[in-house]
Amino acid sequence: MARYFLEVSYDGSSFGGFQIQANQQTIQGEIEKALETIFRAPLALSGASRTDAGVHGLQNFFHFDTDLAIEAKHIYNMNALLPKTIVVKNIYSVPDEAHARFDAIKRAYIYKIHTQKNPFLEGRSWYYPFPVNMELMQTAAQSLLTYTHFETFSKKNTQVNTFECHITKAFWEMTEDGYTFHIESNRFLRGMIRGLVGTLLQVGRGQISLEKWHEIVLSNNEQLADFSTPAHGLYLSLIEYPSFLKKIV
Amino acid sequence: MARYFLEVSYDGSSFGGFQIQANQQTIQGEIEKALETIFRAPLALSGASRTDAGVHGLQNFFHFDTDLAIEAKHIYNMNALLPKTIVVKNIYSVPDEAHARFDAIKRAYIYKIHTQKNPFLEGRSWYYPFPVNMELMQTAAQSLLTYTHFETFSKKNTQVNTFECHITKAFWEMTEDGYTFHIESNRFLRGMIRGLVGTLLQVGRGQISLEKWHEIVLSNNEQLADFSTPAHGLYLSLIEYPSFLKKIV
Repeated sequence: MARYFLEVSYDGSSFGGFQIQANQQTIQGEIEKALETIFRAPLALSGASRTDAGVHGLQNFFHFDTDLAIEAKHIYNMNALLPKTIVVKNIYSVPDEAHARFDAIKRAYIYKIHTQKNPFLEGRSWYYPFPVNMELMQTAAQSLLTYTHFETFSKKNTQVNTFECHITKAFWEMTEDGYTFHIESNRFLRGMIRGLVGTLLQVGRGQISLEKWHEIVLSNNEQLADFSTPAHGLYLSLIEYPSFLKKIV
Repeated sequence: MARYFLEVSYDGSSFGGFQIQANQQTIQGEIEKALETIFRAPLALSGASRTDAGVHGLQNFFHFDTDLAIEAKHIYNMNALLPKTIVVKNIYSVPDEAHARFDAIKRAYIYKIHTQKNPFLEGRSWYYPFPVNMELMQTAAQSLLTYTHFETFSKKNTQVNTFECHITKAFWEMTEDGYTFHIESNRFLRGMIRGLVGTLLQVGRGQISLEKWHEIVLSNNEQLADFSTPAHGLYLSLIEYPSFLKKIV
């Protein structure tokens, strides 16, 4: 058996999430269906990052094992079979023990906000017309690099045994349509980015002072974080692995 | 009675077209509904350009007459009532005899094509993965400025009494995702841009020589044009009026 990584991109709007589950159209479910059609045998996929329903993926990965000959033309075949909103970008040959989820050394997300109603950003960005103090939001975002324990920003129905994350980037960028939050870490907790964005916006609107912001981060109390930020502004943008990915050509 | 122009933008994907009609959700229908809710009286709209079902509008206009006081806050009220995919951008005070359709002196459209499957361009651009000769397509596009009679590119179930158009721009632009056709004219005929784009792509794919292209333009035979180009790549991008628009503030 040989192991392969599948690099995908998807518009999460029309899917009930990433991971396969009964009675829901999911990214994983659609890709397994396409693989089964092409190879006439079921192939089990193991995903790198389980994005929630409605969250988009600019880059996400699966691994799978097979004895079948995987070739570049299968990228074309899969894209012809998959819904228009899921794209296979590459297939990589990897060492037998490589794991899409556990071997990821870095993940990055962006959260897009637009401040003027825009018909073409609907479902791709959050329409948030309220004035914010960007300087305060930037200061609060930067402080995330000084913390390592993020229990406050983790939804509690989760099975993790540690709330430690090493955030290496966290900043707001002004864009043509509004502003975008960028964050990069070795790992993320369930609901973490939406909780961070929601709470940072409260800082930006003056509902939370910077002093209170630090208290909330240190509180380990998820009741103090704002998780109401909608899924459709969030994009998993990058997953980084050690240099073991070898593109199938 | 005073006359006003309403400047709008919309994602045409989810609408049965621009102009009001029975049993279809249309741009005009939704805006008339919002106006009636705000002013508690029906207000009849007259549209500038009747885009087909699925065609997007970056800029389009309506005019309407009323004795009611129209203020800038009504832009906000309308956007709160309208579907997320329709936006009122501005309201203008205009002379009583100004006409949204007949006073337009220039219209511009773009047609977007992407060459790699992309989940985020779905419904916003046409996925057209076939190789084309851009130089030939550019030459054919430029030749449009030398013609004035466009019967070949007009669908025949139309009530116009002239096929004369004065095209002032027609070119292809390379983009990050593929290429975009730009066209600007004093007026357009029914189906004209989709017919032009479809036929230009046949030139680009070598299915029609440049010589044959000129023959087709001169033939006045719409059977020779390719109208199969889908609506969702097309955007009405600009309508220009004499300088009589006065922004409501």
